[in-house]
Amino acid sequence: MPDQFNSVSIRKKANVHYEGHSISHVIELADGTKKTLGVILPTNKALTFKTHVPEHIEIISGKCTVQIGDEPEAKVYSSGESFHVPENSNFKIMTDEVIDYICHLE
Amino acid sequence: MPDQFNSVSIRKKANVHYEGHSISHVIELADGTKKTLGVILPTNKALTFKTHVPEHIEIISGKCTVQIGDEPEAKVYSSGESFHVPENSNFKIMTDEVIDYICHLE
Repeated sequence: MPDQFNSVSIRKKANVHYEGHSISHVIELADGTKKTLGVILPTNKALTFKTHVPEHIEIISGKCTVQIGDEPEAKVYSSGESFHVPENSNFKIMTDEVIDYICHLE
Repeated sequence: MPDQFNSVSIRKKANVHYEGHSISHVIELADGTKKTLGVILPTNKALTFKTHVPEHIEIISGKCTVQIGDEPEAKVYSSGESFHVPENSNFKIMTDEVIDYICHLE
């Protein structure tokens, strides 16, 4: 996995949620595809994110526990792993580390 | 001021300092110029940053109080304003808001 994106546009202002525990920037690739590049800071309560379109979340560094929609079990995802969330659903994320992630909107 | 950078490379992993109060990504413009695009979260103690090369810090959104090197007075900088820090110096930044900034390495 390359450690950088090339030839992208990036919005200067970040999206900050959950009192700064979730910080992300929107990037747009040369082909018009939009993604978000972000950080989740250590949190002792789960952060919930809603989806409108299907999302594919790729963990760049760190380790987190994720519970998707109504799935009964939470799973652990580490650097290099990823998970899919259906449209109009949600996922809960917990971590005691700094997570770098990319959200691919599908 | 355009609200985004175009045709840049961006490193996927953020630089996180001060327990997540300072989060930034390195970007590289088409001409090879490197900058950092970042966020400072509200903090009740000043965050100190050292410089190696001269830096020009541009505040994209929010308002912060900055004290540069040995200058006796701190000054307030808001969205659209910027300040210069000499090489091998430092600056202290305090804010009770979320700050978006760009650091231009000179």
